[in-house]
Amino acid sequence: MATRHITAPAGFVAGAVAAGIKQSGKPDVAIIAAESLAIAAILTTRNQVFGEPVRWCRRILPRGSGRIRAIVINAGCSNVCTGAAGFHDAAAMAKRVAKRLGCRAEQVLVASTGIIGHRLPMRKILAGIDAAAARLGVGDDEAVVRAIMTTDLKEKSAVVHVRLGGKDITVAGIAKGSGMIAPHLATMISVITTDALVPPALLHKALREVVGGTFNAVTVDSDTSTSDTVAVLASGAAGAGPRSAASGDYRRFVKALGDVCGRLARAIAADGEGATKLVSIEVRGALGDAEAAIAAKSVADSPLVKCAIHGGDPNWGRIAAALGKSAAKVSPEKLSIRIGGVTVFARGRPKAFDIAKVRQHLRGSEVRVQARLGLGRGTFTAWTCDLSRQYIAINADYHT
Amino acid sequence: MATRHITAPAGFVAGAVAAGIKQSGKPDVAIIAAESLAIAAILTTRNQVFGEPVRWCRRILPRGSGRIRAIVINAGCSNVCTGAAGFHDAAAMAKRVAKRLGCRAEQVLVASTGIIGHRLPMRKILAGIDAAAARLGVGDDEAVVRAIMTTDLKEKSAVVHVRLGGKDITVAGIAKGSGMIAPHLATMISVITTDALVPPALLHKALREVVGGTFNAVTVDSDTSTSDTVAVLASGAAGAGPRSAASGDYRRFVKALGDVCGRLARAIAADGEGATKLVSIEVRGALGDAEAAIAAKSVADSPLVKCAIHGGDPNWGRIAAALGKSAAKVSPEKLSIRIGGVTVFARGRPKAFDIAKVRQHLRGSEVRVQARLGLGRGTFTAWTCDLSRQYIAINADYHT
Repeated sequence: MATRHITAPAGFVAGAVAAGIKQSGKPDVAIIAAESLAIAAILTTRNQVFGEPVRWCRRILPRGSGRIRAIVINAGCSNVCTGAAGFHDAAAMAKRVAKRLGCRAEQVLVASTGIIGHRLPMRKILAGIDAAAARLGVGDDEAVVRAIMTTDLKEKSAVVHVRLGGKDITVAGIAKGSGMIAPHLATMISVITTDALVPPALLHKALREVVGGTFNAVTVDSDTSTSDTVAVLASGAAGAGPRSAASGDYRRFVKALGDVCGRLARAIAADGEGATKLVSIEVRGALGDAEAAIAAKSVADSPLVKCAIHGGDPNWGRIAAALGKSAAKVSPEKLSIRIGGVTVFARGRPKAFDIAKVRQHLRGSEVRVQARLGLGRGTFTAWTCDLSRQYIAINADYHT
Repeated sequence: MATRHITAPAGFVAGAVAAGIKQSGKPDVAIIAAESLAIAAILTTRNQVFGEPVRWCRRILPRGSGRIRAIVINAGCSNVCTGAAGFHDAAAMAKRVAKRLGCRAEQVLVASTGIIGHRLPMRKILAGIDAAAARLGVGDDEAVVRAIMTTDLKEKSAVVHVRLGGKDITVAGIAKGSGMIAPHLATMISVITTDALVPPALLHKALREVVGGTFNAVTVDSDTSTSDTVAVLASGAAGAGPRSAASGDYRRFVKALGDVCGRLARAIAADGEGATKLVSIEVRGALGDAEAAIAAKSVADSPLVKCAIHGGDPNWGRIAAALGKSAAKVSPEKLSIRIGGVTVFARGRPKAFDIAKVRQHLRGSEVRVQARLGLGRGTFTAWTCDLSRQYIAINADYHT
């Protein structure tokens, strides 16, 4: 039997096909649908230049949550900077899905990813929607996750189980994202499904709570995308779930949702364009959590730090410089830095350290950088990857 | 006769030697001295982690301007993150120069560039200072500019002449900088000499006026350095110069100083690590000049834009996305973008354009990107370079 992830929670079906938008002939149109109306919450990019599909989603869910039947996603063309005609195309995608599912167009979310500034090939898209709708079921999850990928090399999915109100609840998610990944909703499209029963506003609140430490903690190249969309669909099929923000069930649900988003976010960083390593930047002792995030992301976005890590160079001076250039308060004389658990700089002074041990750590597939600012109690962990020649090759040589 | 630049203005001598700090055996210690006390103004990095030489300069010129006899510079080791011992080393460099020139240590500026976190090899440095002092004259300018280079491939100098108060005035400058180049005083050390007669506070004001559109308009990799220092020394030997900010002579002096700084800044961008092209990002129509600068730098710092330019790809969508992600106000429907003078996006809609012509422009050594935001009258031009595999090679493979 095929692996299930996005349809693992009860009440969901999905289907995907190759509609011919990607030149590679790989799957590029996917539909994820609830068997009946589901509760949905979305978050979209903060980029002022945003895609027409984002405009559509904001139009149908002006408060960020409501009732939704399905989401349709295509890769290969992002439908950004295409004006009113592009908005019409996004709406046409929703209408076609609605026709197939027997719901209203305003109950269908749309997300597109790929090159900016080109119109969607609508004939191919609409035929693809028909074909994907015909495949809706629980056996197509692998094709669905492949259909939303662009430069991604790895499929990204996560499934978490949690017990709420005496029932087993499943939270599952898929995500795409590899380049144009930056602070606010890493370039990315992610769909999360759950069979929990959650009121719309509470689902939106839960999503907002978890993105800060997950999708918003990832940066590959500091380039915030125009198409970022995270959608959570809750079918309620499990017959249990959090009722209010004060409940223990809510905390457990948020933890499960955070686990799914965190696993997807780390998978995005690890699969960053050209990445050979997943890198975590943990900042402690900042004046506050917001300052810790600024400091951690300053290091995570530093090309010099990322090149040094790629080359296995324990050049901690670049980490200190990246912390110091940030808008977060940093006092060199209180600053300590560790790489792979080894202290290399302590309270403003270089420390003799086992270079061979640090080099060994840097050769691994996961690199851990820790900075203690010694100023307060703020903490944050950012996720990124190393910067390699392959990033340049992907973004310079392969013309779009 | 050897080319003169930094000693072109009357009243200056310079000398440089290879003291053995650089493993390559190239020149690495330089002294630039006025024949008698000169007026000096300095600006230093905004990075909170700053070098001990920067601390020394701020100590001796607490208001940013005053009377200075010389500046001593070494490359190969930046004396950053070295604590009190490092500050003592910087002071020792000033003292040694002062001893050779017969002035006070507090009349000698110090600048160091190179790897962070290592103590200076003081025995070599002090011997180098003695040797450089013995060479002081007007024939060593080429060695001086080479002595301040690190990963720079090209020597950067500029000489400008201007007529003030009926006298010929010369403004000359040298600079180093290639990586760790970012918004606030591109990583860089620059020394500017002039034979104009300028009061200290006015010289400082003039320097502050010109850096915004020159050194602060350059970004190679968004990494603000810990050692940035720009020092202007005015000998007064020409016997003329601006007396007050209200005079026409002051405007002409600022223009000459701006020309020198602008030429050095563009040379830094063109010589960015791994650069094959100089790229200008001109933003017009922003809500204000400050917003224009934010928008222009957002594009100039975008790895995706820089990779596309490297690959000769007219991918204007990445330019639109980089403008949209910035903190400056951008309205897609009012936005227009040109590459090499060709409009590719006009008021929110893609424009059919001559792709061959734009590709031809992108193959050249200078690339021009123009964005009109259509919101106000703010303008700014940022300077950067393309992002190539060579940047990764320089910063990952060559261990420091």
